[in-house]
Amino acid sequence: MAGEFDFIDWVRRQQAGSDFVVVPPGDDLAVLKWPADQLLLVGVDQVLEGVHFDRGLHDLRSIGRKVMNRNLSDCAAMACLPAAAVATVAAPRDLTLTGLQELFLGMRGAADPFGCPVVGGDTGAWDGPLVLTVSILGRSNGTSPIRRSGAKSGDTIFVSGPLGGSILGRHITFSPRVELARALAATSRVSAMLDLSDGLSRDLPHICQASGVGARINAAAIPIHADALALAGRDGRAPLEHALHDGEDYELLLTANAASLPGCWAIGTIQAGATIELVHADGRTEPLVPRGWEHHFKT
Amino acid sequence: MAGEFDFIDWVRRQQAGSDFVVVPPGDDLAVLKWPADQLLLVGVDQVLEGVHFDRGLHDLRSIGRKVMNRNLSDCAAMACLPAAAVATVAAPRDLTLTGLQELFLGMRGAADPFGCPVVGGDTGAWDGPLVLTVSILGRSNGTSPIRRSGAKSGDTIFVSGPLGGSILGRHITFSPRVELARALAATSRVSAMLDLSDGLSRDLPHICQASGVGARINAAAIPIHADALALAGRDGRAPLEHALHDGEDYELLLTANAASLPGCWAIGTIQAGATIELVHADGRTEPLVPRGWEHHFKT
Repeated sequence: MAGEFDFIDWVRRQQAGSDFVVVPPGDDLAVLKWPADQLLLVGVDQVLEGVHFDRGLHDLRSIGRKVMNRNLSDCAAMACLPAAAVATVAAPRDLTLTGLQELFLGMRGAADPFGCPVVGGDTGAWDGPLVLTVSILGRSNGTSPIRRSGAKSGDTIFVSGPLGGSILGRHITFSPRVELARALAATSRVSAMLDLSDGLSRDLPHICQASGVGARINAAAIPIHADALALAGRDGRAPLEHALHDGEDYELLLTANAASLPGCWAIGTIQAGATIELVHADGRTEPLVPRGWEHHFKT
Repeated sequence: MAGEFDFIDWVRRQQAGSDFVVVPPGDDLAVLKWPADQLLLVGVDQVLEGVHFDRGLHDLRSIGRKVMNRNLSDCAAMACLPAAAVATVAAPRDLTLTGLQELFLGMRGAADPFGCPVVGGDTGAWDGPLVLTVSILGRSNGTSPIRRSGAKSGDTIFVSGPLGGSILGRHITFSPRVELARALAATSRVSAMLDLSDGLSRDLPHICQASGVGARINAAAIPIHADALALAGRDGRAPLEHALHDGEDYELLLTANAASLPGCWAIGTIQAGATIELVHADGRTEPLVPRGWEHHFKT
């Protein structure tokens, strides 16, 4: 039977170096030397077995990649560069040391292209399902973080890719839009941004509420993913419904003082007020009601 | 039914300010301005229902406090000051919004005395048991972090309090030794330090291995907690066994070039080699074999 410390020893041997890391994993905390000219961004995301992945469908390396990529996607949303991460695993009793290593290699595979080391973690065995968390540190590196609160009336609303049907596989295999976000932020035209995790209909209100504005979305302008078409063929719901509400697209949703932006689809306009409307090709207008993903708790 | 975003809205209204925080919770990531003269320390610890707490025995506020205090204890182990934290909750279906708030208030109750805000988080409902994680950022603030690797032959080994029997309650109610650790580090005599989470017999080897040294522990010098005596009365194991092996003491274990240190018990000496010995009052010497807590995984 392999112990927690066998795993930790193995993790230490896998580490790539980083200019930031003064004391690597192995102490109670890792120690970083933070560059004086960089803002520090921090956040956390978890993935839960049966909610965000299915061990019957998804291999462990892909699950490890997903939890890291969710965090890298948050870095994209703020237009910062990933700098370092810490991770936890709550491991079911049937998870082997090899399985833990697969999870870790999935995390590394996602983070390595960004030079973002895993500098700490906590691993425990228990009788519950698999839970992974990653906390990410990001650095501004000369680009001001893009917040949700900067959208202005008249700004164009963009998405960075086709939406809908991610449950067919993209929710596991997506690529975080870090480079695109940095390039967009460098135009100085982006006023608000987030990454689409809960679905366009639920995430757009986050920008509108934070910015004190409303929005008009042109239904015909929304890029619809082939997966949304495929899913519509199975469940009879319209492809547009999938694009509006499915969630886990991990594309950027942004507003900008620009009619067009490279790598982006213009899908609507920010307007004064608080109303969020969906305008169909025939001119019919309806409120865009959030139906994307939200966790609910008893009151 | 309350939603995830009702909880997030409530959390935002609870936040105390911090000189570090430029962008508070509510965006994809929080933004901090890191002081140029401070090292950044980072780590993470989780607590799992049925492993680290029992919802039948422990109230939610105490559970929230425990996960934060485990992280604050890691700050103590490195002699740094807590600066900010992010947290996750994987919430069983029966957990109410009030329950989530209790968990958060427990975290805040632990972190507030250190001016350490919770700057981000992720909350999800699922069919599994309760999982909490906290990732902590610490700052050096003029004190070099104390590592595990600095112990030298001849150094005295100290603990910051009586050990054993924490399962009777102290594993939930302990106070992290942040102020004591800072005061000890300020003496410039401390060569290595960690916090006792897995038990003296399992944690002392971490210092010895990292430092390339051995140790002699004087059994009669180990301060034994009243809880270890109480537990010994129930299970027939010797109080010393509990003090050596129980774990979750969250006291500091340190080595120093000093015969005595305020607030600490001298329990032995660092020696050359790799052997870790326990010397009894009658002169009998035996290897100190790790029997504290370690999570195990299938190979």
